[in-house]
Amino acid sequence: MSELTLQAKELDAADALAPVRSRFLLDDVVYLDGNSLGALPAHVPDRIADVVRREWGELRIRSWQESGWWTAPERIGDRIAPLVGAAPGQVVVGDSTSVNVFKAVVAAARMAGEDRTEILVDAGTFPTDGYIAESAARLTGHTLRAVTPAEVPDALGPRTAAVLLNHVDYRTGRLHDLPSLTAAIHAAGALAVWDLCHSAGALPVGLDAHRVDLAVGCTYKYLNGGPGSPAFLYVRRELQPRFDSPLPGWNSHVEPFGMKPSYDPAPGAVRGRVGTPDILSMLSLEAALEVWEGVGIDAVRAKSLALTDFFLSCVAHHAGDRVESVTPAAHGERGSQVSLRCENAGDVMKRLIEAGVVGDFRPPDVLRFGFTPLYTSFAEAERAARVLGAVLG
Amino acid sequence: MSELTLQAKELDAADALAPVRSRFLLDDVVYLDGNSLGALPAHVPDRIADVVRREWGELRIRSWQESGWWTAPERIGDRIAPLVGAAPGQVVVGDSTSVNVFKAVVAAARMAGEDRTEILVDAGTFPTDGYIAESAARLTGHTLRAVTPAEVPDALGPRTAAVLLNHVDYRTGRLHDLPSLTAAIHAAGALAVWDLCHSAGALPVGLDAHRVDLAVGCTYKYLNGGPGSPAFLYVRRELQPRFDSPLPGWNSHVEPFGMKPSYDPAPGAVRGRVGTPDILSMLSLEAALEVWEGVGIDAVRAKSLALTDFFLSCVAHHAGDRVESVTPAAHGERGSQVSLRCENAGDVMKRLIEAGVVGDFRPPDVLRFGFTPLYTSFAEAERAARVLGAVLG
Repeated sequence: MSELTLQAKELDAADALAPVRSRFLLDDVVYLDGNSLGALPAHVPDRIADVVRREWGELRIRSWQESGWWTAPERIGDRIAPLVGAAPGQVVVGDSTSVNVFKAVVAAARMAGEDRTEILVDAGTFPTDGYIAESAARLTGHTLRAVTPAEVPDALGPRTAAVLLNHVDYRTGRLHDLPSLTAAIHAAGALAVWDLCHSAGALPVGLDAHRVDLAVGCTYKYLNGGPGSPAFLYVRRELQPRFDSPLPGWNSHVEPFGMKPSYDPAPGAVRGRVGTPDILSMLSLEAALEVWEGVGIDAVRAKSLALTDFFLSCVAHHAGDRVESVTPAAHGERGSQVSLRCENAGDVMKRLIEAGVVGDFRPPDVLRFGFTPLYTSFAEAERAARVLGAVLG
Repeated sequence: MSELTLQAKELDAADALAPVRSRFLLDDVVYLDGNSLGALPAHVPDRIADVVRREWGELRIRSWQESGWWTAPERIGDRIAPLVGAAPGQVVVGDSTSVNVFKAVVAAARMAGEDRTEILVDAGTFPTDGYIAESAARLTGHTLRAVTPAEVPDALGPRTAAVLLNHVDYRTGRLHDLPSLTAAIHAAGALAVWDLCHSAGALPVGLDAHRVDLAVGCTYKYLNGGPGSPAFLYVRRELQPRFDSPLPGWNSHVEPFGMKPSYDPAPGAVRGRVGTPDILSMLSLEAALEVWEGVGIDAVRAKSLALTDFFLSCVAHHAGDRVESVTPAAHGERGSQVSLRCENAGDVMKRLIEAGVVGDFRPPDVLRFGFTPLYTSFAEAERAARVLGAVLG
């Protein structure tokens, strides 16, 4: 047994989160793509079967009340809230991330007031945020400027309405400094909108503590909600009365079954709802969140850093200078993934997958490996690096 | 056996669609709320179990390609297309009805050109359409005017950009004249946007034949997709190159995995997509559409009219003048529901449900009974009317 496999064995033996792995259905594949689609929690299939057969099939329309379908968006939002550092009543689940980015950016631009005419967007963002921010700016009459997070402090000014930033860069895995950037944005009198797709469920976010204004996030990555499970929207409590949604669907009405011709928005997080929620995808997410029972986000973060540290050591050992990490080495700048640059990265990823190590490829030359501390072991991190070394030859 | 029960027996015996009922999981309840949530097709539970256990649980991320998840929105759109009279390549599934109304109204207003500054909306619409149209008008700088469908021809003018109408009124069950209203809208140089929530799957729509510009519809009513299954959007082929979405998410990009910083929309119906599709809800819908195998929408319409005619006769017999139908008697003006006005309607519906007849109540005084020809029998129509008579005392 090599020194690294021994070390992995010791790390796994000492890992307090190791038993959580059994809450998921896994196999011999080293699955390092949980930052794209989280693995299946073991109890979700039975729960969904019950939703389909009994709640839909037998109770039918009665389930909107009797099975709690109607209140699922805010109930599940409250379940996600502690994982992102939010008190109850500020998170609502529903729609895709893109749609929630639209709600958040339009609402932020409106709240900033008419004198503030510019929206800033992360230049390295996952593209949909940029496309949607551009549409939001066009519809609200704002200009849009793309800047890197590092450039944000200098770009801020009396004209800045809102800034849309990613907590963790989807490509490089770089963690941006949410507390200091949010403070800088507030000092300029603007609103901070954070995209938490690559941090929710992977590391502490501290939305309330840092007085983030609005945030959106994905639930099918580190929250394991299932393919295309609905996104979430956070609106800080103090801002909720001024949250003026561009998508004022009937689900956000103060009296949704009153069928009133004029729109009167509900108070609270419910104001972020739009249309009828996609119950199957949503209740799959609710069931998936049960794997967090007794698990704290700080423990997850500690294991995430230990896993990525260890993986980077193993990669250095097995793959040497044939790859270059584009993920920062500093803990304070690292999310829960490791991105490696190498030649023919698309082909390398194909061969890795054939060899039972699943990450993904992002053009032009990045191999991404996501680490989900709830189910990834140190032994898997070592094996992935070893297979990578072999594939690179 | 009374004359009406005999008549029901004969009608059921002669019903060519009667065998389709066995494609659903039903029980002794007379379920006349399929216009709110369609019943569960019998094969859907096994299909969803496979999606969860094998496609998500075993294949995980590979399913986006290998299980056809990525192309589901347009594939399922093409499956719905013939039911609403559309050739392939014009319907895409995803998001809620409200979100699709937003896409359609904004896109229509933009296509109409800058000289056209007014949007007309059905004054009796399901409220969300009105709320969303108001938001769309506000964001695009149009004025919004609410008119009844009957007032539309007179309200049209050189300033009209687009008209949003309901094919069937959700409250009264009145079917509006899509061909002639669309022609009038076109004669005024405006665009016609139709909401098909209460007609898709219940009667022929003829989108292509009548040159409808844009349409949206729900899939959890007469299409039985399951609670909150995603809505659909139709964009007439000739208009697709000019379809300028207010929600240009990455799924509508010509090269979604290119991760390009600038937005370049895909051609075709795909342009109506936004973010990651909610796979569980979407594939439930896809499975549900299999009940249409060998079933034509014309046969469904014929049975729908026969069912509602028969129900109205039975109601006249059993409930006499204690209720008043607000659904038009003329076939050309009737959707696939019957709405009855009576005193204490909310309480009457509660007692009907307790007695095993499920419809729903819409304030202030309407009992709604939806007829889904795929699974509703004439015997059930008779029983519902008989129980109503007993409940009314």
